[in-house]
Amino acid sequence: MQEPVTIALDVMGGDRGAEVCLLAAVSILAKHPSLRLILVGQPAVVEPALERLDTAGCSDRLAIEAASQVVSMDEHPRDALRKKKDSSMRVAINLVRENKAHACVSAGNTGALVATARFVLRTLPGIDRPAIMSAVPAVGGHTHMLDLGANAQCTAEQLFQFAVMGSVVAADVYGIAEPRIGLLNIGVEDMKGGETIRAAAQRIGASNLNYIGFVEGDDIFSGRVDVVVSDGFTGNVSLKTMEGVAHMISKLMRDEFSRDARAKLIGLLAKPVLRSVKAKLDPRLYNGATLVGLNQIVIKSHGGADEVAFENAIRTAVLEVEKGVPTHISSLLREQTA
Amino acid sequence: MQEPVTIALDVMGGDRGAEVCLLAAVSILAKHPSLRLILVGQPAVVEPALERLDTAGCSDRLAIEAASQVVSMDEHPRDALRKKKDSSMRVAINLVRENKAHACVSAGNTGALVATARFVLRTLPGIDRPAIMSAVPAVGGHTHMLDLGANAQCTAEQLFQFAVMGSVVAADVYGIAEPRIGLLNIGVEDMKGGETIRAAAQRIGASNLNYIGFVEGDDIFSGRVDVVVSDGFTGNVSLKTMEGVAHMISKLMRDEFSRDARAKLIGLLAKPVLRSVKAKLDPRLYNGATLVGLNQIVIKSHGGADEVAFENAIRTAVLEVEKGVPTHISSLLREQTA
Repeated sequence: MQEPVTIALDVMGGDRGAEVCLLAAVSILAKHPSLRLILVGQPAVVEPALERLDTAGCSDRLAIEAASQVVSMDEHPRDALRKKKDSSMRVAINLVRENKAHACVSAGNTGALVATARFVLRTLPGIDRPAIMSAVPAVGGHTHMLDLGANAQCTAEQLFQFAVMGSVVAADVYGIAEPRIGLLNIGVEDMKGGETIRAAAQRIGASNLNYIGFVEGDDIFSGRVDVVVSDGFTGNVSLKTMEGVAHMISKLMRDEFSRDARAKLIGLLAKPVLRSVKAKLDPRLYNGATLVGLNQIVIKSHGGADEVAFENAIRTAVLEVEKGVPTHISSLLREQTA
Repeated sequence: MQEPVTIALDVMGGDRGAEVCLLAAVSILAKHPSLRLILVGQPAVVEPALERLDTAGCSDRLAIEAASQVVSMDEHPRDALRKKKDSSMRVAINLVRENKAHACVSAGNTGALVATARFVLRTLPGIDRPAIMSAVPAVGGHTHMLDLGANAQCTAEQLFQFAVMGSVVAADVYGIAEPRIGLLNIGVEDMKGGETIRAAAQRIGASNLNYIGFVEGDDIFSGRVDVVVSDGFTGNVSLKTMEGVAHMISKLMRDEFSRDARAKLIGLLAKPVLRSVKAKLDPRLYNGATLVGLNQIVIKSHGGADEVAFENAIRTAVLEVEKGVPTHISSLLREQTA
């Protein structure tokens, strides 16, 4: 794509307000001289927030698109779809459909984003349902997981489609040649799991994807698999489990290193080392989940994202645009089913 | 129960051999003066191993029961059931059925143990299927989870039965008054998840269990729920995910604290603090999963358990015998369905 990349940002979504999105926007524009951003939201909120920032050098690449409504974090997706037709989320997605932006990024309500994106942008030919895909830390790098919660139940055919989509994103966006695909199960033997997952194993195994078989929950972090495929229920529970464990361990460490004066002193000395452990696990580095399987590109940022995290979500969107991820998914899918 | 407690130990199961089981046996007998243990295994293995240990003071409470076969860790449960009728696992379970032991403990093949225990001991009246239940660390204590892998798919009625069984074990064995029960889901709103889990929520909500609603993967560690109920697929993936994350963080810490001389020195100083963090997460302390829902008591030890871990599994068995867990499950179930 030779023309400059344009990304629409839903700056009203998320838990931290528009400021965080605007800070991220200004920061990434300074790094990408040809990038253009459209800030979508209520002008009464966006304009004064933007005025407080130093936009010298990027103001000509920043536009504001008015949207009068906001989808709340606990709104039912159906209500968001029916009653919030002028929400920042909906308007940002509309800009993509109208080819005024190449992709959009939102930190808003996940269910509403999936439902709206699916309704407005439609899934790619041959793809039944979009899936949520994200990177998680692993020994020696990271692993990519999908679906993380868009589809509580999936057919074998849908799991196969996820495998195709996961393979494309891992290769295109993260530069992994022939990504190793695993199906998340409760054992590695052929007989494990229910009928659906065994049928999916057959289907993926018969394709020319680099399928390595069933993997278990602990394999996600072992470095022996690049893309872990599961239904959205299992994927979401696994993702939230890892967040919970990491949070608990981090709390235990803080508690133990503040137990007494001696522990506090050692904690102070150990800080650089502990910080470098934490940096490797920093969820902000992995921010920017892809709503994969749509005709166009939609990136979901974590609701609690700060400016660093939100900037990473925008960066993921730019990469997917540059690589033409949806087109690649279509052609890989055609190859598999030809 | 006034008579001394007798536990049958399958000393041939597990990855670490009979020695570990015997060390654990001798250690726990020294602490429980009325406890009796029956070591089940191949005499050619058990007898010489036992002779190498100091059994003064407990030899009269140790018996050996011969079993000629061993179930391997990768054996199909069906084969174990049909072809290994004189395995240490089967003979240990038979001792329980014949009332020669009050409970049995095995570190062997989980699938084979569930299938054999279910076949020999049968489920309690009103219970469709046994479940695997275990404690996992949480902020401020621990959380109890079931099913951890015995049943890949479950009906709403089975999930309700798990809630009843989980409530009894948490109260009886771990002393939690009115355990807070949560159903593992991908969101806390009523509409989340599939039909089965929503029907289970209705069923448990209508009982007089202390049901707190849907919980998510990160809630397992938050301390806001005591018993987390799920099907065995979800529970197993969640359990393995937590093992994988803890292992990865521990590896990252080791790597960072050995990066250079300075980091190594700080690591040495920080060792007591880090050790006390590790101790709180030590999976050996949580060893001893209950095969809950059977007429009698069967405890599954982790396959890689060392003697500390295996001793904890025996301790769990003793506690369940003393409290009469199966009888309590039956009466609580009758209360709910009366």
